[in-house]
Amino acid sequence: MLSEEKQKLNDRLRISGVQKVKLFDADNPLILEGGERLNEVEIAYETYGELNENRDNAVYICHALTGEAHAAGWQDGDKHAGWWNTLIGPGKAIDTDRWFVICSNLLGGCQGSTGPSSINPDTGNPWGLDFPLLDMRDFVKAHRALLKHLGIERLHAAVGGSLGGMQVLAWALDYPEEMSNAVLAATSSRLTAQNIAFSAVGREAIMRDENFDDGEFVSHGKNPDVGLAIARMMAHITYTSEVGFQEKFGRRPQFEDREPGFGIDFAVESYLDYQGTSFLTRFDALSYLYLTRVMDYFDPFSDSKATKKLHASPVNFLVLSFSTDWRFSTQQSLRIVQKLLGAQVPVNFREIASPWGHDSFLLDIKPYLSTVKAFVEADHGSTSQWEDRNRGAKCRA
Amino acid sequence: MLSEEKQKLNDRLRISGVQKVKLFDADNPLILEGGERLNEVEIAYETYGELNENRDNAVYICHALTGEAHAAGWQDGDKHAGWWNTLIGPGKAIDTDRWFVICSNLLGGCQGSTGPSSINPDTGNPWGLDFPLLDMRDFVKAHRALLKHLGIERLHAAVGGSLGGMQVLAWALDYPEEMSNAVLAATSSRLTAQNIAFSAVGREAIMRDENFDDGEFVSHGKNPDVGLAIARMMAHITYTSEVGFQEKFGRRPQFEDREPGFGIDFAVESYLDYQGTSFLTRFDALSYLYLTRVMDYFDPFSDSKATKKLHASPVNFLVLSFSTDWRFSTQQSLRIVQKLLGAQVPVNFREIASPWGHDSFLLDIKPYLSTVKAFVEADHGSTSQWEDRNRGAKCRA
Repeated sequence: MLSEEKQKLNDRLRISGVQKVKLFDADNPLILEGGERLNEVEIAYETYGELNENRDNAVYICHALTGEAHAAGWQDGDKHAGWWNTLIGPGKAIDTDRWFVICSNLLGGCQGSTGPSSINPDTGNPWGLDFPLLDMRDFVKAHRALLKHLGIERLHAAVGGSLGGMQVLAWALDYPEEMSNAVLAATSSRLTAQNIAFSAVGREAIMRDENFDDGEFVSHGKNPDVGLAIARMMAHITYTSEVGFQEKFGRRPQFEDREPGFGIDFAVESYLDYQGTSFLTRFDALSYLYLTRVMDYFDPFSDSKATKKLHASPVNFLVLSFSTDWRFSTQQSLRIVQKLLGAQVPVNFREIASPWGHDSFLLDIKPYLSTVKAFVEADHGSTSQWEDRNRGAKCRA
Repeated sequence: MLSEEKQKLNDRLRISGVQKVKLFDADNPLILEGGERLNEVEIAYETYGELNENRDNAVYICHALTGEAHAAGWQDGDKHAGWWNTLIGPGKAIDTDRWFVICSNLLGGCQGSTGPSSINPDTGNPWGLDFPLLDMRDFVKAHRALLKHLGIERLHAAVGGSLGGMQVLAWALDYPEEMSNAVLAATSSRLTAQNIAFSAVGREAIMRDENFDDGEFVSHGKNPDVGLAIARMMAHITYTSEVGFQEKFGRRPQFEDREPGFGIDFAVESYLDYQGTSFLTRFDALSYLYLTRVMDYFDPFSDSKATKKLHASPVNFLVLSFSTDWRFSTQQSLRIVQKLLGAQVPVNFREIASPWGHDSFLLDIKPYLSTVKAFVEADHGSTSQWEDRNRGAKCRA
């Protein structure tokens, strides 16, 4: 049972609760970017606020690697509100009194949507490593199918951080006519060798775990807990910053009177241990492999025509980076800005000062939240106005 | 058999080859900083050049976490020369035509010196986790015992990078009368929370490996290969820099015509895999635990009297950092400089521009090597001269 206060917030949010919908089936399969087909795709999603009569106030939230459909408000048993409760709510940056907000769990994920640990309808057993490899565009296919199901043709905005920002970018490049505004926070258009390296070590830890069983651990009632926890602990270091860690933990011992050893001597070790352990209760090792690999391969601007469709249907972009984010640095955001500006697309960019590294995009940082709010609520002028200005610029050039 | 060229270099180096000496035994045990005693300590070391008649041209090399006694020249079967062959040799920064150079394997190590996988003389079995915890000062005790064995009372210089630099610092603070010069490269006087976090995840990967067997894997004829390889792969990312990785590998695929999957798709993945695998042939998982823990706890300046002995016997310090080293950043070197300057000790500091991150201290970077050479060969003035100047300064104050 939710407390009165939480129930009140949920009521104001008009939270739908997590719902599941079968978006693809044998008659209408999902044809993946790699050519394979999925004959059964279920997507979990949650909504907040109310769709208006014109059906033009929808905002789509794209989650990061380990996110889920439940982005705001409270579920029974929640210790914390939804993962982006800082951003989404009545009067907040994504104002649920104004916008109809949708968040779905990723295809390939493990929190309600079809993924590699779901049942393969052809065999009756969990997919395991037989699940086809995914591409960023496959995520977009699932998002668009959900929008169609909800009867929405065009988004007021798509908003995402980290892997979520990548989805928004892919979506905006391929279907710019389907959104007015795009918010990309703490993201990248192309992973660096170091980014890939960190993900590779995490995957190795999982795949070399004695319980991985070539990906058939679900069928065998096992779980590669050690590998998954190690992957998460390591990744978590990269989500914070040196200065953030130093401020939060420094060299503080975890216990005052214990002999040194190889266990948890320092507070930072206790924190990491908690991060690794708690991750096991909410995430699937196979989803970790599949989703990180999608990020590794994402590189839309390698296609020189990537921005072509934006000329006909410009999207207003807001690109945000955080000063101490070394996982997806400001430089990576600036590359996106540069590519979009090169295509004469309207781009707003801001680097937000924050000591908290990559995970800053999830936190209550006022200048960040107010920037998102101002952007999403601004009247950026009609597309045609922008086109007129742009055409003028071209004529003068 | 060595090639003629390699034999020629060895001859010029006057390389001793790795030798072992028992420095402590039951009659003369090593009393560790933590109070425990080791009744049998063997240390492996190698020397280059010749000790002069005055026995005052000795330079001690302290190795980093995974280094060893063999620092320069060639051993039978070597694919590469000794680990610091860039620095040590005839005419080089540490000129073996001039200096008598000593490098020993660390106490607690696994390349010839007594460590946790050595035989416990009381049980006849490998020590395992019964091996006592070590402290930076215990390394110094072993180094000093070796010097005594070699009949050397005072060093011209002690030189070390990373963990090696920590040893040099500890040594100089406690026994400044035993060295004229100290070179600290890419090192730290106090690990940050992020530094500890990375080491902690590496240790977790090792200790949670199914073959770890509470540290008794040697007795059981097993090895925690997976954990040790994962620890090394992760650590290796932190030894390089984002820009170095990008320059070396970028997003280059490892194979041109292979289907994507979860194996080695990118060149950077192949490189990491090699780093992890080759490490298994040369390093011991228990040494990894013990040596990293010594680094975690090292914090000499937490003692406000740490620099007191340097007043009576000043040591000339050279502190070097590398511009892209984020494992032990320039800021960490500057903290050492600041602490030493606060104690009115002569300190030279330089940040060397290098794209290669932490491991730069092992590389052939001209401004770095020439700085070390100039410092080690300089006439810094006699100690008493420096003291006179210093005393003058104090009088004026």
